[in-house]
Amino acid sequence: MAIKIIAFDADDTLWDNEPYFRETERKFCEMLEDFLPQHSVSRELLQTEIKDIPLYGFGIKSFMLSMIETAIRISDGNIRIAAIEKILRLGQEQMQLPVHLIDGVEDVLKALQPRYRLVMATKGDLVDQERKLKKSSLAGYFHHIEIMSDKKEADFKKLIDHLDISPDELMMIGNSLKSDIMPVLNLGGHGIHVPYHVTWEHEKVDAMIDHAHFRQVESIKDVLQFL
Amino acid sequence: MAIKIIAFDADDTLWDNEPYFRETERKFCEMLEDFLPQHSVSRELLQTEIKDIPLYGFGIKSFMLSMIETAIRISDGNIRIAAIEKILRLGQEQMQLPVHLIDGVEDVLKALQPRYRLVMATKGDLVDQERKLKKSSLAGYFHHIEIMSDKKEADFKKLIDHLDISPDELMMIGNSLKSDIMPVLNLGGHGIHVPYHVTWEHEKVDAMIDHAHFRQVESIKDVLQFL
Repeated sequence: MAIKIIAFDADDTLWDNEPYFRETERKFCEMLEDFLPQHSVSRELLQTEIKDIPLYGFGIKSFMLSMIETAIRISDGNIRIAAIEKILRLGQEQMQLPVHLIDGVEDVLKALQPRYRLVMATKGDLVDQERKLKKSSLAGYFHHIEIMSDKKEADFKKLIDHLDISPDELMMIGNSLKSDIMPVLNLGGHGIHVPYHVTWEHEKVDAMIDHAHFRQVESIKDVLQFL
Repeated sequence: MAIKIIAFDADDTLWDNEPYFRETERKFCEMLEDFLPQHSVSRELLQTEIKDIPLYGFGIKSFMLSMIETAIRISDGNIRIAAIEKILRLGQEQMQLPVHLIDGVEDVLKALQPRYRLVMATKGDLVDQERKLKKSSLAGYFHHIEIMSDKKEADFKKLIDHLDISPDELMMIGNSLKSDIMPVLNLGGHGIHVPYHVTWEHEKVDAMIDHAHFRQVESIKDVLQFL
């Protein structure tokens, strides 16, 4: 069946995101190096984040809370209050960064909009994602914005039902094999993977996908070959 | 025109919510009373929350971050790390509380579902609201769930467009005049106000509404008189 709806992931697909998290994390690890080597701080933070996902979900506020929890734990309660204050400031600063579009994104949206219904399907913090969309000036290209609490098969199933299409009428484009591509392929949809140069540890998968509905391209501009 | 869609607010309309925030806040104010009288702590917290809304949005994670920021500020950095740890614990505990439905809610939804499309329209934390909906076992009654970053006129306008109805085909039922009723009336929709016994300071308005599309009832069960 023909593709009717093209869904785009947002973070690291439409605009840069992960490098900002990594930069905040780098400053966090530096702050904590009196207690643990930086790479161990980073590992501890990831463990806290993964533990906290079921309670907090994804996104910047969750990240701030997990940094605070990690700082207290690895310092055994000896971290200074000034460091907690700095974590709040780092998070708030990150929320206020400008949005930097990935090269070619606007041309791709402009080319596809007349021929498909475009939707943005992203997980993370509701307010933060809406703010980034607004700053990006891309909102006008999308017929529908879906900010999802997670991107598992059940979540995409709900999206497909809500959009009132059959799974094979959906094409998902994103940088995460785990969150954007695999669940959609499993439901019978189509996926184009556009890798980004930084991937969060939690999103990494070792997978070679060989599937009739799957493509991998180097740059977002290359998706136009298939659409 | 006849009502087609009935939208329900969730917190303090379908289930208890504000008392849990007030109980967490009470414990927070107790913790801080070495620095300020409890009622002043409460006022300082409200100020922080209002300042943080544009950055954080509404909901429990925002509340946790605002409590931490307030504790640091009013203690002039002298709050103990154990208190920060306790704020994290209080927030995490609040997230895990059972959901207590307001008396009559399920009967009302059962009676209305065959005759209208029911939607849930709530603001707050995405993950926390989805978790509460799941625990409530009410998800099956709703055709559509909208978790909004705010509930101003522009947000309801988007919802109305998205639902593909005209404003006067929408009836909103909720406990907040400011967030549930007034924006919907202003757009030309209908509203039934069902007051709750506790209201967050930030939601309080001094208003007597006299409007042909407006009703106020004492209990959610009373909405059936008008529908």
